[in-house]
Amino acid sequence: MRKNICLLLAVCCSFSAFAQKQQDYPIQPVPFTSVKLADHFWNSRIETNRTATIPASFTRCESTGRVKNFQMAAARSGKFCTTYPFDDTDIYKTIEGASYSLAVHPDKQLDHYLDSIITIVGKAQEPDGYLYTARTIDPIHPQAWAGPERWVNEQNMSHELYNAGHMYEAAAAHFMATGKRNFLNIALKNADLLVRTFGPGKRTVAPGHEIVEMGLVRLYRISGKKEYLDLAKFFIDARGHKEYNKKSKNPFENGVYWQDDTPVTNQDEAEGHAVRAMYLYSGMTDVAALTGDKEYIAAIDKIWDNMVSQKLYVQGSIGAVGDGERFGGNYELPNTTAYNETCAAIGNVFWNQRMFLLHGDSKYIDLLEKTLYNGLISGVGLDGKSFFYTNAMQIRDSFTHPDIERERSGWFTCSCCPTNIVRLIPSIPGYMYAQNGKDVYVNLFISGSANLKVAEKELKITQQNNYPWDGGLVFNIDPASAMDMNLKIRIPGWAQDKAIPSDLYSYEKPSAQKIEIKVNGKAVDYQMDHGYAVISKKWKKNDRVELTLPMDVQRVIANEKLADDNGKIAIQRGPIMYCAEWKDNAGKPSSFIIPKDVVFTPSYNADLLNGVITLKADVKSVNVDEANQNVSTVTSTLTAIPYYSWANRGKGEMTVWFPEQVKYVDLLSK
Amino acid sequence: MRKNICLLLAVCCSFSAFAQKQQDYPIQPVPFTSVKLADHFWNSRIETNRTATIPASFTRCESTGRVKNFQMAAARSGKFCTTYPFDDTDIYKTIEGASYSLAVHPDKQLDHYLDSIITIVGKAQEPDGYLYTARTIDPIHPQAWAGPERWVNEQNMSHELYNAGHMYEAAAAHFMATGKRNFLNIALKNADLLVRTFGPGKRTVAPGHEIVEMGLVRLYRISGKKEYLDLAKFFIDARGHKEYNKKSKNPFENGVYWQDDTPVTNQDEAEGHAVRAMYLYSGMTDVAALTGDKEYIAAIDKIWDNMVSQKLYVQGSIGAVGDGERFGGNYELPNTTAYNETCAAIGNVFWNQRMFLLHGDSKYIDLLEKTLYNGLISGVGLDGKSFFYTNAMQIRDSFTHPDIERERSGWFTCSCCPTNIVRLIPSIPGYMYAQNGKDVYVNLFISGSANLKVAEKELKITQQNNYPWDGGLVFNIDPASAMDMNLKIRIPGWAQDKAIPSDLYSYEKPSAQKIEIKVNGKAVDYQMDHGYAVISKKWKKNDRVELTLPMDVQRVIANEKLADDNGKIAIQRGPIMYCAEWKDNAGKPSSFIIPKDVVFTPSYNADLLNGVITLKADVKSVNVDEANQNVSTVTSTLTAIPYYSWANRGKGEMTVWFPEQVKYVDLLSK
Repeated sequence: MRKNICLLLAVCCSFSAFAQKQQDYPIQPVPFTSVKLADHFWNSRIETNRTATIPASFTRCESTGRVKNFQMAAARSGKFCTTYPFDDTDIYKTIEGASYSLAVHPDKQLDHYLDSIITIVGKAQEPDGYLYTARTIDPIHPQAWAGPERWVNEQNMSHELYNAGHMYEAAAAHFMATGKRNFLNIALKNADLLVRTFGPGKRTVAPGHEIVEMGLVRLYRISGKKEYLDLAKFFIDARGHKEYNKKSKNPFENGVYWQDDTPVTNQDEAEGHAVRAMYLYSGMTDVAALTGDKEYIAAIDKIWDNMVSQKLYVQGSIGAVGDGERFGGNYELPNTTAYNETCAAIGNVFWNQRMFLLHGDSKYIDLLEKTLYNGLISGVGLDGKSFFYTNAMQIRDSFTHPDIERERSGWFTCSCCPTNIVRLIPSIPGYMYAQNGKDVYVNLFISGSANLKVAEKELKITQQNNYPWDGGLVFNIDPASAMDMNLKIRIPGWAQDKAIPSDLYSYEKPSAQKIEIKVNGKAVDYQMDHGYAVISKKWKKNDRVELTLPMDVQRVIANEKLADDNGKIAIQRGPIMYCAEWKDNAGKPSSFIIPKDVVFTPSYNADLLNGVITLKADVKSVNVDEANQNVSTVTSTLTAIPYYSWANRGKGEMTVWFPEQVKYVDLLSK
Repeated sequence: MRKNICLLLAVCCSFSAFAQKQQDYPIQPVPFTSVKLADHFWNSRIETNRTATIPASFTRCESTGRVKNFQMAAARSGKFCTTYPFDDTDIYKTIEGASYSLAVHPDKQLDHYLDSIITIVGKAQEPDGYLYTARTIDPIHPQAWAGPERWVNEQNMSHELYNAGHMYEAAAAHFMATGKRNFLNIALKNADLLVRTFGPGKRTVAPGHEIVEMGLVRLYRISGKKEYLDLAKFFIDARGHKEYNKKSKNPFENGVYWQDDTPVTNQDEAEGHAVRAMYLYSGMTDVAALTGDKEYIAAIDKIWDNMVSQKLYVQGSIGAVGDGERFGGNYELPNTTAYNETCAAIGNVFWNQRMFLLHGDSKYIDLLEKTLYNGLISGVGLDGKSFFYTNAMQIRDSFTHPDIERERSGWFTCSCCPTNIVRLIPSIPGYMYAQNGKDVYVNLFISGSANLKVAEKELKITQQNNYPWDGGLVFNIDPASAMDMNLKIRIPGWAQDKAIPSDLYSYEKPSAQKIEIKVNGKAVDYQMDHGYAVISKKWKKNDRVELTLPMDVQRVIANEKLADDNGKIAIQRGPIMYCAEWKDNAGKPSSFIIPKDVVFTPSYNADLLNGVITLKADVKSVNVDEANQNVSTVTSTLTAIPYYSWANRGKGEMTVWFPEQVKYVDLLSK
């Protein structure tokens, strides 16, 4: 594993100010603070997040009593006034998102507001570093989930370490974005309490809802204090040693819900609560990178393969089962009851970024891109103030399920997803580029410019494109002076006829268009390396790279083991998965049959859904004449929109998968 | 409550040889040994049970190792060789069924075989009375569910008291049928051990799978030993005192699965594992009758109302949910995933018979009849050797669920249902008549004769009818000499336009035919009392009563809260619920639309399914032309068969509910 020196602020995964020469990810991300976007698709989302989502989130933290909980804890008096002890984390996550925002968009008022909130948080902290409002407000009568004493309910209910983990993530982001230590010091004091409390010969627990592991790694990167890294590993290794009823199929009884059924190095399947799983695997990847632990790497590689080849929805969502918010069994990917928590998609982005930094393979970014452009941003409405907790695959008038949302809400009693969106959206520029010495990775195609240093020399990369709609991409490579550099541009799996890097989904036929790369107007030969087109040359000022990706409309077919998708097709164009919604399809998007010879016509519509390419095709649909009780087949126009944009125009039916031919109909009387 | 003296063998519920003047059910059943059937519908089933089911069941008890378990326990050596510790009960239940059979159909060979099995059972019993092969074979390494010591796993896993309860039921039946005490003595010795072990100041447990309560009552009726009755009540009262996680919705975590979440006198909803529930409620009814406990009666009345008005399928099945084999929530009666364990239907017959004996209302027999003629006997194939564990409401080619059976099996690893059928079928004559002094109840309409005593005088009642196909019923009332007697003939709810005694289902319009009763050829006025037509007169030799019940084909509609049945209809004629099966309907029974003005033509077909009335109607159906991908509405003939007779001609689609009109179609590609 190569050692790497990185002195830049590294928000997404690494911050190695102290960390010269130590073992770490061989690849380091270019921090989002070095990237300035000028992108139609993402700028509007990030700006909406800044102007609408962040303020709304703070307003809700205040109006729902989340801030009051901290004030009461500061006063050591009152009664915990929200529902869950982990409600504290909504404040942390909003501070984290606001910090990312501040770093690229200075805002004194917001900066002061954060400081005022951080002051309250600091006062809620007990003298020894403990910070958990559900107990500190009234330690004699803590909130029910908190348990009678510190830590005793951690596995099942209290979320004390979950709160700590989110606090560390937020404090690290705030420190890196602002340079201020006020929140960081609170976090370090709390982490020191954990170090005194947990570890060999001290208290042991397998954290009930993982994230403290990632958070401790983040504090380790800032502080260089090895105890934090050791404790992260201790918590990970604590899993799988509790007595469960191994015969039970109930994930609460057999420990699978918490990924606690067996030690992590024995785990080989993505299982249990999907968000917890993503945070655990992310933490394991961090610790593996920092320690070189080969058993961890073997385990997460197996788990990733399992997830991708058996438990991933076609639009990148995970966590099929509502009961337990968890992964289903292998190939258990039902459509009408798909749960797909937004937080799980966000966790999947965290994990895949780490897997890429560890292995340098584009397949992880392929999945990250699929998730990001589809099943993740579907979780927030175009207004930035309405959210999906679940992300449906199919909405039918004839079928309701209590778990499955049909329209977005402003906030939830358990409001993890909205505040996770708050922190994810402004961090997106940090996922675009990465570097390993003279290897520069271009992972995402988003217009704007990035400032890197390659062998101490300045390098500016500018993208000008209209992704994800247009496959013609331009990269301006502008070194301060001529330099040797290996430009590694990700060639997406979908452009190479791989729907995702597994056999779970595939395209019916190859793209008609070909991939082409030109440098300064001339076609070049390039090497492919782990999914990247590598262009090695001495780069000069204003070199121009053009990449053409095929933008055919693709018919996606599913592995036959996916019972709900058998005989059906999904529609993809570039990285975007499509769906059909009631609004464009006379209320009944599921009445269409999409035959093999379908021809879709793409057209950009600037006024629709903040600007989208729609796909239209004239196909057969099955019509019900209610008055005469006649059912017949007619030809009509199917209009598909990007999946991420559904449910922004009221509620009604939506479907991602369409029958290729009809063998049978189910008569519904309501 | 009236006291009653009954010296007859009373198999179904009471055996009161000792019990003069003590508190008991006000109504006593006429034992099945006093009834001789000559009925086309039932004789063939009972004869098949005798000649096919009982021998096949014993053969399977031997071939699967169930008998070997007893032999090894007798030898105190070996290794438990079947799957579940409750596999012992399959032998007990088959002995019970064989005993009923012996009582009406003497068979020396069978009698000797029973004795030989009972000898082995006796040798498997430990000196202090303990009888449980899963431990006795090897107490150091008992079968895993058995637990390391006696009784410690009873609540969750061991089924030690469940085995005891079935043993008592079987031993009582064997004693009553044969007069032999060999099995009874084994049972009494075991019951005495329970009395020494459990009770106030001794060990306490809420039996994990109820039935020991009913079994102890049965032994109490035979022996008069009040400790057995007291212990039955002790076990019932032990429920609801364990610490569970009351907030959990998981029925294993909150105790609902075992009916252990709250004391029984607080229970007001049919909940948890459906078979356990039926056995508990039956035991409570027995104890209530024998002790006059008003709190028990209040509880079971509420639970019965809940079950009937919110948790009962239209064909009499209960236990909607496969996960936990349990009752769903109120109005949770899905069709495609209906579980409907055969044992739960049998338990429901037990309970309703007891509720009738307690309250004297025909509504309990209405439900008993609905269950018996539909969702219970569907559990056994016409060959007597193939069984359903579950009883589906709808089978679709396009939908499979691992829990839902499409065809019957010869035996199951957990083979409770086949052996419960073995014991239920030959006991049916015992459900026909009951008596309370001079009130004689006629509950079921089955051809044959019964010998009763009314005020010490002999009375013979003979039924000659073709029920359930023909509504013209004839009862020959033949006292040894003229006698005053109140003949109470059940007028079924369905004949009075009550689909069942609740608003869960109703008929669309009243029957065109009227109920008519004649005595010796002359129409008589009669009083209705609790659902019974009461004819009070001085009866003379060869009096003849004729009752005409309407046999209109009825369209049944469901309460709108039943989501899966909204806008649909079911078909009923007399007590028989109908379904449409693939075989008679070009493979697609669910393609039909049954409009309000449908006219069904009934016709008896002697060669079909052992003789059934089919219902035919020309209606619209939706046809899929696969080759041309055209969907259209055509007119075709729907043929419906009795629900109980489905799945006797291979496997394919089946449906009970039909859309009344189509508002929407679901396109299926497989």
